[in-house]
Amino acid sequence: MQKAHTPLLSVIWNHDHIDLLDQRLLPEEIVYIELTTSEDVWEAIRHLKVRGAPAIGITAAYGVYLGIQRSAADSPQQLVEAVRDQVKYLSTSRPTAVNLFWALERMEKTAVSGLEKGLNTEELMQVVLQEAIQIHAEDEETNRLIGEHALSLFQDGMGVLTHCNAGGLATAKYGTALAPMYLAHEKGMHLKVFADETRPVLQGARLTAFELQQAGIDVTLICDNMAGMVMSKGWVQAVIVGTDRVAANGDVANKIGTYSVAVLAKEHGIPFYVACPLSTIDLQTPSGEDIPIEERHEEEITEGFGKRTAPQGVKVFNPAFDITPHRYVTAIITEKGIIEPPFDINLKKVFEE
Amino acid sequence: MQKAHTPLLSVIWNHDHIDLLDQRLLPEEIVYIELTTSEDVWEAIRHLKVRGAPAIGITAAYGVYLGIQRSAADSPQQLVEAVRDQVKYLSTSRPTAVNLFWALERMEKTAVSGLEKGLNTEELMQVVLQEAIQIHAEDEETNRLIGEHALSLFQDGMGVLTHCNAGGLATAKYGTALAPMYLAHEKGMHLKVFADETRPVLQGARLTAFELQQAGIDVTLICDNMAGMVMSKGWVQAVIVGTDRVAANGDVANKIGTYSVAVLAKEHGIPFYVACPLSTIDLQTPSGEDIPIEERHEEEITEGFGKRTAPQGVKVFNPAFDITPHRYVTAIITEKGIIEPPFDINLKKVFEE
Repeated sequence: MQKAHTPLLSVIWNHDHIDLLDQRLLPEEIVYIELTTSEDVWEAIRHLKVRGAPAIGITAAYGVYLGIQRSAADSPQQLVEAVRDQVKYLSTSRPTAVNLFWALERMEKTAVSGLEKGLNTEELMQVVLQEAIQIHAEDEETNRLIGEHALSLFQDGMGVLTHCNAGGLATAKYGTALAPMYLAHEKGMHLKVFADETRPVLQGARLTAFELQQAGIDVTLICDNMAGMVMSKGWVQAVIVGTDRVAANGDVANKIGTYSVAVLAKEHGIPFYVACPLSTIDLQTPSGEDIPIEERHEEEITEGFGKRTAPQGVKVFNPAFDITPHRYVTAIITEKGIIEPPFDINLKKVFEE
Repeated sequence: MQKAHTPLLSVIWNHDHIDLLDQRLLPEEIVYIELTTSEDVWEAIRHLKVRGAPAIGITAAYGVYLGIQRSAADSPQQLVEAVRDQVKYLSTSRPTAVNLFWALERMEKTAVSGLEKGLNTEELMQVVLQEAIQIHAEDEETNRLIGEHALSLFQDGMGVLTHCNAGGLATAKYGTALAPMYLAHEKGMHLKVFADETRPVLQGARLTAFELQQAGIDVTLICDNMAGMVMSKGWVQAVIVGTDRVAANGDVANKIGTYSVAVLAKEHGIPFYVACPLSTIDLQTPSGEDIPIEERHEEEITEGFGKRTAPQGVKVFNPAFDITPHRYVTAIITEKGIIEPPFDINLKKVFEE
């Protein structure tokens, strides 16, 4: 049974077009824009109206269908060519987004496979749309499963701290680290969430606090440097974060500041959980030392709020991510279940199953 | 031997007036304003052109002299009355500043004591000015001694991390936590300083990074949540911070985020030092639990830089300070020397000596 508030959805398929939440306007305005053509989709991805790898992939998948739905193709072969053109076109919208290419490739394969099965143009068009809907549904289901497993570790009334945004806005629904909070809310359980604002880009303030507040979930915004104090007061019984990549030994790359939170959790005897789909676990990367850490523009720190707040010419260190060594990680929670240490053995096992 | 760059001074006595650094314009502009009357001083204190307890006390002390220097008093008694009037007037400039009252009280006592010694009006006026100069010089000497003791713990080439601003701008010169950095620079020693930006009000970015950069000291600005990563890279060999109050058991109240830094330092085997004058140690306060923690406006977090960066109506927790339990403190460094654990015994000893 859903509560009155449901998670705000970033991508909605609405009969023949996408209703897309314009994330550039958050948290000040909630505006859905209609995307009716693949040009609309290209523009939305390029100009960051949609963000988060899964949400971008889903939007692009629908974009392929939008690009062919009024196609003049009079043979299945011509329609598959039209799909290929759309895939090429949409892949130029954000050349660094791995998930975008994954989704577009899957759309192309579906069309080719439909052609091989002898479908006509009308049937091919339906197959393409169904594949986009399927990608969308699978992402929601993955997140729901992550949330169910994570929630089995939580109890009513617990305080849970999170860093950055691994939420529903970046995905089809629920997100990863925020999934148990949404599911708890659906079940009528009360979790008290602390959201680190997450300097320098403030994803915690702008997105996590925003989407949980929208869903009617109890969330308190703090500065990153307050996490230690909040833990020392006994207000936090679990930490849960997302991740950009998990190495084969269980080392976790995530938004800068995650490592500090993990150390603080350990010092206070608080479990530190990482929530992610299996696709984020990279057995080809032996350890965190093998994950390159991007350094970003110093202006994010020196004038991140539209106003200069540091002296001109000052040296700045601005890593986008940090590595949390696996010894700080209590468990990694995936759609296949809860993976506990020793991670070097247990991560492999999950993929073998 | 001084280097070409010297610390920027916040208060300079210039023959017959104060040259005051307008700290509201930092770090964008370095502007000294001339204060020639006690009204100028009142206005400068009230409107935060000068900040930092010691710097406020010093400015107010000179303000008493500026208020009487063109006095029409034709007797020593009348001049002492004029001093009393100035003390009353200037104490209304910032009713919560304890150091302000301490300095003004000392100025009044000096005038009264001069009167009792039978000084004439001209001599009394000189004694009042000399007392202000003495308060100013004592603060510089205290900080220089703190710096010398702290520096004995540092070695050439070390990385030192600090949080918030306990620097020269808040005092006569050198500051407390930053004093060893200035002294090292004067001696030609190289320290590599990491300055936490210190959310929400960014004293680290706006003041610490600024004043060290001005002095030609190697400083790198980081977000608070990067301290753990910087430590894990082996770039930091010591942490040093100031404090607002030290309890009798060695628990330390300081700017929010200090506790997290202390935990991270412990986890990385890095010593954590607290620098302060003896006047900051309060043996009447048994432990950190007895120190009230002020909570500040949520707007500091949600729209701290003139732009809203969090959703309307979101719950916020914004404590101004936190408590670092004494077990995380390696040593407390005062003008009387380095105080090591057990603090409950050794802090008392320093006051008995």
